[in-house]
Amino acid sequence: MVKGVVMAQDYRKFFETAVDSVRGEGRYRVFQDIRRIKGEFPKATWYKDDISEKEIVVWCSNDYLGMGQNECVVEAVKSAVDAAGTGSGGTRNIAGTTHYHVQLEKELADLHDKDRALVFTSGYVANEATLGVMSKILPGLIIFSDEMNHASMISGIQRARCEKHIFKHNDLADLEAKLKSVPADAPKLIAFESVYSMDADIAPIEEICDLADKYGALTYIDEVHAVGMYGPRGGGVCEERGLMDRVDVIQGTLAKAYGMIGGYIAGEEVIIDAVRSMASGFIFTTSIPPSTAAGALRSVKILKISPEVRAQHKERANTLKDHFRNAGFPFIDGDTHIVPLMVSDPIKCKAISDRLISEFGIYVQPINYPTVPRGTERLRFTPSPFHTDLMMEQLLGALHSIWDEFELKRIKVA
Amino acid sequence: MVKGVVMAQDYRKFFETAVDSVRGEGRYRVFQDIRRIKGEFPKATWYKDDISEKEIVVWCSNDYLGMGQNECVVEAVKSAVDAAGTGSGGTRNIAGTTHYHVQLEKELADLHDKDRALVFTSGYVANEATLGVMSKILPGLIIFSDEMNHASMISGIQRARCEKHIFKHNDLADLEAKLKSVPADAPKLIAFESVYSMDADIAPIEEICDLADKYGALTYIDEVHAVGMYGPRGGGVCEERGLMDRVDVIQGTLAKAYGMIGGYIAGEEVIIDAVRSMASGFIFTTSIPPSTAAGALRSVKILKISPEVRAQHKERANTLKDHFRNAGFPFIDGDTHIVPLMVSDPIKCKAISDRLISEFGIYVQPINYPTVPRGTERLRFTPSPFHTDLMMEQLLGALHSIWDEFELKRIKVA
Repeated sequence: MVKGVVMAQDYRKFFETAVDSVRGEGRYRVFQDIRRIKGEFPKATWYKDDISEKEIVVWCSNDYLGMGQNECVVEAVKSAVDAAGTGSGGTRNIAGTTHYHVQLEKELADLHDKDRALVFTSGYVANEATLGVMSKILPGLIIFSDEMNHASMISGIQRARCEKHIFKHNDLADLEAKLKSVPADAPKLIAFESVYSMDADIAPIEEICDLADKYGALTYIDEVHAVGMYGPRGGGVCEERGLMDRVDVIQGTLAKAYGMIGGYIAGEEVIIDAVRSMASGFIFTTSIPPSTAAGALRSVKILKISPEVRAQHKERANTLKDHFRNAGFPFIDGDTHIVPLMVSDPIKCKAISDRLISEFGIYVQPINYPTVPRGTERLRFTPSPFHTDLMMEQLLGALHSIWDEFELKRIKVA
Repeated sequence: MVKGVVMAQDYRKFFETAVDSVRGEGRYRVFQDIRRIKGEFPKATWYKDDISEKEIVVWCSNDYLGMGQNECVVEAVKSAVDAAGTGSGGTRNIAGTTHYHVQLEKELADLHDKDRALVFTSGYVANEATLGVMSKILPGLIIFSDEMNHASMISGIQRARCEKHIFKHNDLADLEAKLKSVPADAPKLIAFESVYSMDADIAPIEEICDLADKYGALTYIDEVHAVGMYGPRGGGVCEERGLMDRVDVIQGTLAKAYGMIGGYIAGEEVIIDAVRSMASGFIFTTSIPPSTAAGALRSVKILKISPEVRAQHKERANTLKDHFRNAGFPFIDGDTHIVPLMVSDPIKCKAISDRLISEFGIYVQPINYPTVPRGTERLRFTPSPFHTDLMMEQLLGALHSIWDEFELKRIKVA
């Protein structure tokens, strides 16, 4: 034994310290073990421990439209499994490109009115791999990133290892100042989201594109919380606002409104081909299962022609907001389908969530630091077209009693 | 318009240049569009273009045991879709932990005889996220990485941004020299694979663990090309050699022998809990679908009690090697189930692959630089228990005629 080597118990201490620090920051996560009940969305079974079960209503799913239980989507998945088996068996280049993948990418390109789309194993990987490879393709690239961008975009930008400027959230003046501060002839890319999931607000997309034109920057938008839900065909906020042609790369997910898993980018042929050819996180990983591609394909096709589902979704979100407004509950009204109810205390936020599920069978996850800044802890509600008036009443009843019990502030109703 | 800004056409040129350079290096990939035919593994339909189809035999799938078409696995997937729908609807922390995930992680921990396991969206992400977060947990960490490690491990180690030493492939003397060269009291981690997919060889695991003990290093092994296929219960090469307790973190995949998608790590409770709590690529991404977890669970359970499938697999691989040996075809015999046939010329390698599929209905992907070093281009065969004697005869017949036509060397048969 070499003198002074690190011993097993020393390593254990490092790992313990890491977990303790997470605990100390109040962000140690305990995963709720649930199982959704197909056909009864948004209901699920909660496995309280390994012994007892309880039926709950899920209020925090990102399966925003319940498409994960849509009968046509379910059938598409099952029939693809019957036809082609489960996994794809390889990377896209080594036996892992199936006809389902090819069709799905065509469908997504069409959805966003772009030349081509490229599917990744997740939205996280789509962001990380694409942004991460941009600096290789564009030597001297400078990335401008909204400070509220998702962890996957931050990870991709870190991977790019190029000059970066973080601009204030949705702040055009700050973005312009930063664009102006770098050489005009440097390649630039502005990375931002349409719907920000935690604050429920939407970026000034058109104005950002105007700045991109003025300063010669590429634009990259993350529409994961918008595809399927905004725009006449579910093409996202860019489609709704007629801006799809103004954005160079549109990134989306199949794991939220489309009810499956996987992510993608859509853009001009040569951009997609370059990313396809160079991004490690795309190349060296098993492709999504054929049945996942088949289910996503069906889901995208269905939501293309389902404006009524989007209208119902909007109505439900607005109804919940009205209830919160009338009750004086402080929430963020960002003109989206997401309804963050502000608790502004990490301990209470977690305690309320625990009480809601154990006592009332209402499941809404506490959102604490570092997902949101300290002091802005919240419960993030995602009402779907399937959340009934009765479920809303039950939720309101539970919140009323809890709000008083925890001595939380209400906003005076005008 | 600001003077001298980068214009759209300038950007296009950057992307074109990137793609051209990939083409110039002979590594522009054209994905074969196929669809596997369930129940007829390893057969598939090849979509030559959008008009014509052809039945082919797949010789390069990483669904090594055909479990992606196993009826019990297929039924497990379908019944989970029927019970719980398609996608999980959220991250593990936000409504995305289902009972299937919980059961699967218990099963994987048991498979490797470890406290706990953690499932990621892919094996790539498992490596990248885990190795990437290690330097945060272990300040001052130094990573020792085999030069042939997979892209996902390299990506994780880059992400860790700590001191790293690349040791020569499977070279214990070089590894020891590098371990010796750093301070004895620095935290260290040795990252390596068991079965190397492209060279078909196996690491000297025991000796690496001995060095780890001597120099006080953690050990991290990637068993993605071994789990399900080696060891009495399919626990991998570490299980086969009785070394599971000597390795701190075992990483595996659900996308190869288990026929699904997703990856995992298994290890001591506190290690897994730290990674679970801190790795961005685990935390901020939608969990695998319930049905994927259910299918993987079934597949792991089946392969735990299927030594006969492993024996058949080995027999088929050895038979193919015998055929190659008798024919004088140069292949690497690394004592694994993978059979790399050396072409050693990128143009011919691609051309042979194209001829095999178009003329003979035999699909084997060319493996060129940068996946393997220049001059070592190869066709990588992965015979499964379902590749029949007849399929082997057809393959040999095709290779005989092609080998002569392309004027490739044969090894003199003793």
